[in-house]
Formats: sequence, C-alpha cells, structure tokens
Amino acid sequence: MNDQRENGGFNQRSLKALTDIVGRGYCRSHPIDLELYSYDSSPFIHYPWAVVIPGTVDEMAEVVSLCRRHGWPLTCRGAGTNLSGGAVAHRGGVLMSTTRLNRIVDIDLLEETALVECGVVNLDLQNALAPVGYMFPPDPASQKASTLGGNVAENAGGIKGVKYGITKHHVLGLELILDDGSMVKTGKLKRGLEFNEPDLTGIFLASEGTLALVGRALLKITPLPTSYRTMSAIFDSLFKSGQAVSAIIADGIIPTALEIIDRTLIAALEDYLHLGFPVGAEAMLLIELDGLGPELNAQLARIKDICFKAGAVGIEEAENEEDREKLWLARRSGNGALGRVKPATIVQDVTVPIVHLPKMLSLVLDIAERHRIVIAQMAHAGDGNLHPHILFDPSDGQEYVRCLKASADIFAAALKVGGTITGEHGIGLEKVAFMSDEFTEAELDFMASIKASLDPTGILNPDKVLPKKWQPHGGKGPF
Amino acid sequence: MNDQRENGGFNQRSLKALTDIVGRGYCRSHPIDLELYSYDSSPFIHYPWAVVIPGTVDEMAEVVSLCRRHGWPLTCRGAGTNLSGGAVAHRGGVLMSTTRLNRIVDIDLLEETALVECGVVNLDLQNALAPVGYMFPPDPASQKASTLGGNVAENAGGIKGVKYGITKHHVLGLELILDDGSMVKTGKLKRGLEFNEPDLTGIFLASEGTLALVGRALLKITPLPTSYRTMSAIFDSLFKSGQAVSAIIADGIIPTALEIIDRTLIAALEDYLHLGFPVGAEAMLLIELDGLGPELNAQLARIKDICFKAGAVGIEEAENEEDREKLWLARRSGNGALGRVKPATIVQDVTVPIVHLPKMLSLVLDIAERHRIVIAQMAHAGDGNLHPHILFDPSDGQEYVRCLKASADIFAAALKVGGTITGEHGIGLEKVAFMSDEFTEAELDFMASIKASLDPTGILNPDKVLPKKWQPHGGKGPF
Repeated sequence: MNDQRENGGFNQRSLKALTDIVGRGYCRSHPIDLELYSYDSSPFIHYPWAVVIPGTVDEMAEVVSLCRRHGWPLTCRGAGTNLSGGAVAHRGGVLMSTTRLNRIVDIDLLEETALVECGVVNLDLQNALAPVGYMFPPDPASQKASTLGGNVAENAGGIKGVKYGITKHHVLGLELILDDGSMVKTGKLKRGLEFNEPDLTGIFLASEGTLALVGRALLKITPLPTSYRTMSAIFDSLFKSGQAVSAIIADGIIPTALEIIDRTLIAALEDYLHLGFPVGAEAMLLIELDGLGPELNAQLARIKDICFKAGAVGIEEAENEEDREKLWLARRSGNGALGRVKPATIVQDVTVPIVHLPKMLSLVLDIAERHRIVIAQMAHAGDGNLHPHILFDPSDGQEYVRCLKASADIFAAALKVGGTITGEHGIGLEKVAFMSDEFTEAELDFMASIKASLDPTGILNPDKVLPKKWQPHGGKGPF
Repeated sequence: MNDQRENGGFNQRSLKALTDIVGRGYCRSHPIDLELYSYDSSPFIHYPWAVVIPGTVDEMAEVVSLCRRHGWPLTCRGAGTNLSGGAVAHRGGVLMSTTRLNRIVDIDLLEETALVECGVVNLDLQNALAPVGYMFPPDPASQKASTLGGNVAENAGGIKGVKYGITKHHVLGLELILDDGSMVKTGKLKRGLEFNEPDLTGIFLASEGTLALVGRALLKITPLPTSYRTMSAIFDSLFKSGQAVSAIIADGIIPTALEIIDRTLIAALEDYLHLGFPVGAEAMLLIELDGLGPELNAQLARIKDICFKAGAVGIEEAENEEDREKLWLARRSGNGALGRVKPATIVQDVTVPIVHLPKMLSLVLDIAERHRIVIAQMAHAGDGNLHPHILFDPSDGQEYVRCLKASADIFAAALKVGGTITGEHGIGLEKVAFMSDEFTEAELDFMASIKASLDPTGILNPDKVLPKKWQPHGGKGPF
C-alpha cells in the first residue's frame, strides 16, 4: 500500500493540460481528492497523481490521448465498487472517474435496446426501463451504485445469472476509446443487426480497463416477467443445500435465482434487518422463478419436492410482493450486515461446476476452521459461483495473514475441482499471482499478445489481470 | 480464377512431411483431388498445393506448425458450404479438411453442453440430441452438410435466429490451434462455469480461419420446445410481407422463425417439390412459434391479426407435423430449387434494421430491374437478414458482370439504411473490397492489430476478411 506520488514528468503543467480538457473543477489533485480515489471495495490502496472527471466521451478520448503521449498510467473507474483492486491506480498516474457520463441516450422498444453512457448506474437504467415493462437482466449486488461501464469492464454477474446469463450476454455493441485516443465501434453500435465479422465486442467484457475504455454501450433489454414465485428453504447442513441446487438444475428447471446463505450470514442479516430469519439454521436457500403463472405452479411443486428430498427441514413461500422484497433486500444486504461480525472483508468469488458445489461449500468450512478465521458464505449457487466472505479485523495483522492463506486455499480447492478463481469480481490486483495456477504459459502468452497489440505502451490500468511477465515490456512500462 | 500451383519451396519432400503427420492416404496432391478442393459454394476457384485430412486435433496442430515453419499458406475448411469464398485456397498452399474430426466427444445433460470435434456435421449433432430432448439451436440452411467448426468460424445463423440467436450465443468455449501449432483453451472448456477474464472465445466467432483454427468446441445445448405452431401467410406485395414482419416484432412477439419467400422462389419451389404453393403470389411469409401450448394459441391469433392488417390475402396453418415439415423442407430447398431458373447463383447476405426491412426488399426488386437480371429473394426476415439470390448463367459473361454490379448496389443500399454487408455468410474473398465502405480506417487498423498479433506471418487463410493493406505485412506474406 505504497504512495506513488513521486514521478518523473507529471507536474503543474500536466494538471493544466488535463484541466484544459475536462474543465475547471473536474481535474483534481488536492490530497483529500487523491485520498478519496485511492481505494475501491477491495483492501488495496494506491494514490493517483490526479483525478479527472470528464463530461463527454470526447473528453475521455482526449485524456487517453494525452496520457499516451506522456506515458502516464491511466486507470478508469465507475463507482469504485470493484472487489479485486481493479479500480485503484496501482502505478499512480491519472485516475479517470466516469460518473458524469450518466446519460441514458436512447431506449428503443422496437429493437429492444438501450444506448447508455458508461457512467449510468445500473439501477438508474432499471428504473427507467421498469415503467415501460423492461429490464436489463444483469443485476450485481452493487447495482445501486455500480455503473454499466464498470459492469461491462468486469463482465458483472448477479442474482439472475442462472436464468438470464451475465453481462456479456446482454451487450450488443460498444463505443471504445483505444489507447491512442482513437474511437472505434464494435457490434451492433456499428451495424444494422447481428453481424459476423470477428466479434470484437467480447474481448472487452471483463478486460478490466486494460485493453480500451468503454465510452458508450448498446445493451439488449428484456421484457419484465409477468409473474414470480419466491421461496426460502431451510437446511441443517450447507452440504445438503448445495445438493438441492444440483438436483434442481439436474431436473431441467431454470429458476431466476438460486442463492445460498449460510449460518453466519443468516445471523448477521437477522441482527441487522429483523426479518424473522431462522437464526441457528445451517443454510437457507432462496429460490425465485419467473415466467407465466400456470407453468410456475408446477415448477414450484417440483422444487419443493426436490428440496425436501435433499433434506430441507422447512420451506416458506413468499406470499406477497412485500415478503418477496424482504428476501431480496436481505440477500443484497449481505456485505453490509457482515460489518457487524468483523469490520473488514475479503470477498471471494470462485466458481465450480454445479456437481461439485456441495463439496466446495464444505471445503470452505474446513478451510475456515483450519485457519481459525470466520468465513460467511453466500453463493449464486445456480451458477456454481461461491462468494465466501472472509472476515477480519484490520488491526489484527496476524489474522489478516491467515485470511490471505485461506484465500489461496480456496483458489486451489476451486481449481482442483475444475473451477475458476473468479466468477464475476475480476482478477484486478488480488488474483494476478494466481493466474499461472489457472492458465498455461501458452494461454497467458495468447492473452499477452492481445494486450500488447491494443496497449503496446502499457498505460491502461497497468499491473492488472496479467502477471508482470506478460505485461507489455515485462511490466516495466508504461513508456 | 487463377491456378497457383507454381510455388517456391513446396515439393515432394513437403508432401512427405505432411503425410508423415496425417498418415498415408490423407495427404493428397493428385490433380483430381486438388480440383475437388478448389471450390466452395461461392463462385471462387483456387487450387491448393496439397490437401490434408487430419484425424485428430493433435495432427491438425502439427500441420499448422509445419506450415508456419515453412511459410505455407493454410486454409482450413469443413464441408465447403461457404458462400463468400472463405474456404478456397486463394494463395494455394495447404488446404486442410476437418471432415475426419467428426466425433461427438460428450453430451452432458446436467451442464447442458455438448463437446464436439470441429468436423461434426450440424445435423448429426441435432440427431444425437433429439432423442434426449435437446437441440443445438443454430440451424443454417446447410445443416445437412456444414460442420460445427465451420459454423463457429463463420458465426453461422439460421432460421431460428430470431428467437434463439446465432452461433456465438451458443458457444461456451473453444480449443484453439494457434498459428505456431500451440493449443489454447478459452471459455468454459478451460473452466468451471462462467469466467470473467476477457472473453477470448468471441473473436474467433466469424474469424473465418484467419486468426486460429478451432479443434474442439463446447456448445450450449437447449431443451427442445414442447410444441410448435407453424403457418404461412400470402401477400400480394413483398413490401407488405416486410411490413407484417416489422409489426410482429414491434408487437413484442418472438417467433422461432419468420421467413420471407418471394414470387420467383415460390414458383421454383413448386416446380421442384409440388407442395401446392401459391404460384403467382408476390410473397409468402413462413411463421413458426414454439413454447407451451396455451401461450402459443394467443400469440398465433395475434399474429394472424397483424398479418391481415398488413395486407395478407390468405393464411394457412400447418395442421400436423407432416404439413410443418413440408414448409421447412421447402425453405431449406431454396438454393437447389433455384438451379431450375438459372444454373448459378450469387447468394447475398445483407442485414438491415427491422424497420427498414420492407423498404430494403423493394430496393432489391428495383436493383434487379435496373440491371436486367433475376434476383430471387428469401430472408430471415425476423433478423432483418436478407438473402437475395442473384441468378446467372456462367456462360453469359455480360450477365455475370451485371450481377456483380447489382451485388455492389445491394451492399450500398444496405449500408445506407444502417445495415451491414454480411449477416451470416462471412466476408471471405467476396466482400473484402467492400470492408472500407462499412468500417473506418481506425476500425480496420484495430482488426489488423488483432490479426497481426495472432498470425504475424500471415499464413492463416490469407487475403480473407481484411483488405490487402490491413493484412500482415501489407498482404505480401505469408513469410
């Protein structure tokens, strides 16, 4: 957690050049501003040299061009909700915030698209779409704050992923700013409808700002379902709740959401929200179906049956919209509620094949015990995506070290069963050291060749995603 | 249509080296073999120096590595059904056929995936999936012959695209052979479930064999619908049939298929298949819905209403599976039936926004009249994807020239309304010269940087997709 304010050529003239682009008040270098933008939602802290807050895509492009000419590192961020350190300025340099680019440019109900600027908050788009009967399915837990540009850059998932897929399934085209400030359009932004040149949109999904910046995005929107059924099932073991999930998926039912909440989290949520949650239960499975009424009743009965067979000790159906909202409020409040248990968290994000979900949930319990730490578990279980929340007290250095060891053990366990070290939170700084565990040299070489071709000087979010050896110029840049 | 058998270093020793990899009988250089592999389904003809038919992905990789070491151009193809010249060996070199790689490695109903070798025929996969209640939604008209590797390389569409999307929406991961023969895995092939590093799978969808070869693909499979409704609506103008399509989509109904067939094609099909088609009608719209029974009845009534409002003069519903199959047999027989009108065809493939579909159908009629040629129209209308079939007699050189002019006019008309020059047939050789009409210099530079990073010596399917200036080394390679 070093302070990198000292640097070669960056000075008052540099600040003036940035201010000339974005306007007075939108280029900031006061220590308080640098402090404010030195962190995201991960434990990493790094200070930028300056913060710029452009008001248009053209201004974004001019800033990128200036950074490239001077070899200044450039880290772009939306709301800073990133959990893996992707949004901190690891080499200092210029930190660009997209929050002023918050215009919903167009909603087209015939084409079922929304054209948005990168800084539009996910929930603001949902709120604009709901009155006309539509939604944008990806709904990360951070949706109240996180921006769509950030959702694209991280390929965000969410609770509805099991049925609707993740961000990449809903992005039709991008307006991109390349490392030299030139702008290109990919996908449907450029064209009539589907197009079949190489799909140049995809590589920017989850590129974490290391390949280009997203100026505007054309998103596919989806009609809101006409009805829902929501219920919770209680289990006396985490393993059994995982088995129920495997069995539901194996049965061919595709719920909208299948979320597991463990004992620690149930207690924390009840303490926080007083919803009458079953404190003491080992696991709660939240299940939601959407679609047409008659079809849902049959599926619901089938799911109840599967849950009881898997060992559920009780099932409760949300009887009205208020009940339903309570359950989802609880799920979305997980991070906050856990603050009552320990002041800080490392949120893990491994994903495993569904068949191995029950085992993986148990392995995380073992890891917590072995390292004598508290891990609260929640999981987008229908996706096989676990979010072990490793809780710690930053004033206890020894505990933090044990947490990092537990984190490494969780990565290893996920890879062992054919899983991955990230489902939706990205690699950022946090998991760079683990990339070689998941990928072969040839695969990292391959990613590096794409990075080198799009950001040859290495200015774009340096040190993220790829290990040093695979960064442009072996990570010695930016040049 | 030149013969490029003369070449620098390629000789008997080269043939032996290839034979050593693929085995006796699978490296061919007899003039008849070279003739057989000199064409695809486009009018382009170019002779390879040798044809190799590897039996495993490892053999494919060894061939690629050998070609790279010697600087031999390498064109990979499945069944050769490509319509834009993507599968012909424009510089000679080695032509690789994947037809022996026809194993369905695994079908996993829990994960809903199929792992296939690149040479598996699309229909063979459908036939393996149907008995267990599944399908692979992309169904190009060539599905009886075309291979899944080819479908991936071209990002093939199909009749069901309007509801289910195109190939890229159903590919979870790829095993790729890079230009130096190294192998990398992308997407789910590599990992547990969804993964959020940059999506390296997407750029190979529609890359037409210019960036890497596909060895195996992990495909998402989809449960077969439980019921269908199929009908045909007759119109006294092509424009009105297009308006009906716009109106159906605008109404929020998502049919499985919405196909327009014009007067010329109706007559050719009736002449060929004797199905009782309404010879003399200006247009027929084929409509299919799938899903659950009760829901379909309401949608069907709504669509009938919309069609009559748009000017349909008659609507007929398929009363049983036999009727339904007749309609789809007819649609899939279009290319063949048109052989009765003229011996050769340029199949065009422009796509326009749905709102402009009626106008575009009319513009193509005007273009045919202006150039005094016959254009039969069929369209995946729900996708905005038109397939004007430009018919000609190869022995009439003047007519062929008029057809090429008409083709250029169709591209220009599509771009003018915000469309694209290819929906699903690829750029190949045919449309290379038109890429600059659709893309800016910055966008072509961007594509070229990806090509240069993955195929720096330019051996992979040279001259395809990108204009000469944007090929590695300005198209002077391979080196």
